[in-house]
Amino acid sequence: MMTESPRWPDDETMMRVAIEEAETGFRQGGVPVGAALATPDTVLGSGHNERVQRRDPTAHGEIACLRDAGPRASYAGTTLYTTLSPCPMCSGAIILFQIPRVVIAERVTYAGDVDLLRAHGVDVVLWADERCIALMSEFQRRSPQVWSEDIGGR
Amino acid sequence: MMTESPRWPDDETMMRVAIEEAETGFRQGGVPVGAALATPDTVLGSGHNERVQRRDPTAHGEIACLRDAGPRASYAGTTLYTTLSPCPMCSGAIILFQIPRVVIAERVTYAGDVDLLRAHGVDVVLWADERCIALMSEFQRRSPQVWSEDIGGR
Repeated sequence: MMTESPRWPDDETMMRVAIEEAETGFRQGGVPVGAALATPDTVLGSGHNERVQRRDPTAHGEIACLRDAGPRASYAGTTLYTTLSPCPMCSGAIILFQIPRVVIAERVTYAGDVDLLRAHGVDVVLWADERCIALMSEFQRRSPQVWSEDIGGR
Repeated sequence: MMTESPRWPDDETMMRVAIEEAETGFRQGGVPVGAALATPDTVLGSGHNERVQRRDPTAHGEIACLRDAGPRASYAGTTLYTTLSPCPMCSGAIILFQIPRVVIAERVTYAGDVDLLRAHGVDVVLWADERCIALMSEFQRRSPQVWSEDIGGR
């Protein structure tokens, strides 16, 4: 049985930044996934999916967020907040940069591969945020083709 | 024993595009990794690592190349040419978008995880290109810190 990792005091505040990014993306007609990279008290960067807006298939929320945070010598002590369970590319970025902790608002609308992250020692905190589930469900209903292409045609 | 996948007629030509990207990056003071996405007779996009130039840690050669190629409904029939064995993030992108074939100029200076790609059904063609080995070795010798950070501090 999986032991659930504990929430930290600022998790809600930091996830709010990621959710606002997702909502911005939704208003722009894009895939509504947002992310924020933070230490326990500071947001280092944030971003949202820009596949539609910039015609950039690699600009998933997590990638846009890491791009916004800029190059770092180390990601020790950081947490990546994301509104949706990370895809293989974004999971690979988390593993590459050895980001130690990831908080995922929901994995109901896209499962991702949380086990892969955990197998690499990432501390994964999994929520079931109703706002994020509703936002992504609405997008998937409106734009099934864009959504399918964003996750590699599955 | 591993069976080596065959070369295709235009592989040399397409890899030349990737190598030129790597050489451009090197001249700019960046990490000299380049990539090209192609069908058997057409280059769809190309790019090089821009961690240094754009201060973008996600701009590995393969990601910059996929960004340059733009959004696609499908990657069926494409080959990704890269001068260096893909890192976890770039391997994840290949897996995400179901890119069926990857030609890697060398994995001597960075091993990557070729087995992961093969486990996902990717046809991996592995070269040991002396030009690429020399270029990356020279960069690693000159800029060990940048190189280490580019692959997550390993």
